[in-house]
Amino acid sequence: MVLINGKREHTLNVADRGFQYGDGLFETIAIDNGRLIFLDQHLQRLQHGCQCLLIPCPDLGLLAQEASRLAQQQAQAVLKIIVTRGIGGRGYRQPDSIVATRILSLHPYPNYPEHFKQKGIAARFCQTRLGLNPSLAGIKHLNRLEQVLARAEWCDPEIQEGLMLDGLDRVIEGTMSNLFFIKDHALITAPLNASGVAGIVRERIVQLARTHAFPVTEQYFTQDTLLAADELFVTNSIIGLWPIRQLQQKLFPVGKYTQKFMAWLARSL
Amino acid sequence: MVLINGKREHTLNVADRGFQYGDGLFETIAIDNGRLIFLDQHLQRLQHGCQCLLIPCPDLGLLAQEASRLAQQQAQAVLKIIVTRGIGGRGYRQPDSIVATRILSLHPYPNYPEHFKQKGIAARFCQTRLGLNPSLAGIKHLNRLEQVLARAEWCDPEIQEGLMLDGLDRVIEGTMSNLFFIKDHALITAPLNASGVAGIVRERIVQLARTHAFPVTEQYFTQDTLLAADELFVTNSIIGLWPIRQLQQKLFPVGKYTQKFMAWLARSL
Repeated sequence: MVLINGKREHTLNVADRGFQYGDGLFETIAIDNGRLIFLDQHLQRLQHGCQCLLIPCPDLGLLAQEASRLAQQQAQAVLKIIVTRGIGGRGYRQPDSIVATRILSLHPYPNYPEHFKQKGIAARFCQTRLGLNPSLAGIKHLNRLEQVLARAEWCDPEIQEGLMLDGLDRVIEGTMSNLFFIKDHALITAPLNASGVAGIVRERIVQLARTHAFPVTEQYFTQDTLLAADELFVTNSIIGLWPIRQLQQKLFPVGKYTQKFMAWLARSL
Repeated sequence: MVLINGKREHTLNVADRGFQYGDGLFETIAIDNGRLIFLDQHLQRLQHGCQCLLIPCPDLGLLAQEASRLAQQQAQAVLKIIVTRGIGGRGYRQPDSIVATRILSLHPYPNYPEHFKQKGIAARFCQTRLGLNPSLAGIKHLNRLEQVLARAEWCDPEIQEGLMLDGLDRVIEGTMSNLFFIKDHALITAPLNASGVAGIVRERIVQLARTHAFPVTEQYFTQDTLLAADELFVTNSIIGLWPIRQLQQKLFPVGKYTQKFMAWLARSL
């Protein structure tokens, strides 16, 4: 089911700038037992992203209402919200009066095996790099060719995620997830001021670390540093937290700290 | 008028990856007296871009046929061709079997004043940077948020183009054009292996320089180097060639070499 500007439709004018230029942003929200997980945080991030891209954000109350309407359809599902700059303007120049397009769509919950959570996943490094761009960094925008090309690098079904570096050889995140590692009893994740997506679960994990006085820092790191980590995990709004049990040839335990964060996250939903 | 996969339609399934991820590319072709300018070169570039993005390119004969059908509608117009990876796949992962979507649309020819060509335009430097990404550099893909943000930096109607730098402070191109300058009787333009769009007219200008044994090099340059140039101009498929008469506060002549290239280009159409 799809709602476009509040109406049940599934096609959009090709003149929409979301299609012409990827001129918009999106949110992917888990629906669990009919409940929209972290809905407020997603709507806040959407609003912040709209501000960064100079798109007038649709009313958050209206979005929440439409989201709830869709969430009633299925107990377990994924809700995607897309907001674009709408139609108009001349070339890249935005229209003088912007009327944003909003699209809410319901998707099946992916049937990931339960053991991804319990025993961890296998990951690899991707060749495709994240471009450095401070004006777009952190925003969940619709320009996702880097992720599409990175995800196209492997088809081995045993590998669940690819980790991406930026142009300065710094490991930033997964194609569809944020990345954390534990080293010497501290939690580390990459800063997202030059590339990457500021994930809702990533932010929650950092909050949980602070709440529990667990040392946490944002710092850049290399592939070698990551391979020398004690524990690794990735997060996103649909998977929650997956430990990484294997990266390239190296094996990692689903360690005690990863289990702690998994338990803290589960309790905070 | 819009043709989507050969049919007269103007709406597209929102599940199309062009809309979901900017997962596609485009061409913008001038129609002059019913003739599609540089059609072959545009179709070749489209095919090359599809190869880079791993999208099976629609048959070029079919595209040429549909383009001609639209070009018969109006003597002066702009034809836009968009090709996307179509529908399907799981998240960023592309579908096992890709059926590309092709969209051809006709747009009014922009009513630029004739003096832009004769007397030149005013340009500025933009704050928004081009992200460095070798896997996307040169391709006219649908991820155009950088250009949209750069174009949103000014609304002064006296300024026709904004010049963009990459993250290493190198001037690369305009928001909608490629950039050339003349210094000491030689033509210089930036390499496009880390960012930028490899324009059809840019390529033709380089060819014309070689044909006429005019010294031409691709090299990176700074804002200061550009401001110290003898002559400046920008190119794209719709404007052809526009001299820059003013960049920031600095004035430039519409010099003899710029006029030479303008004449050579006009004769080569």
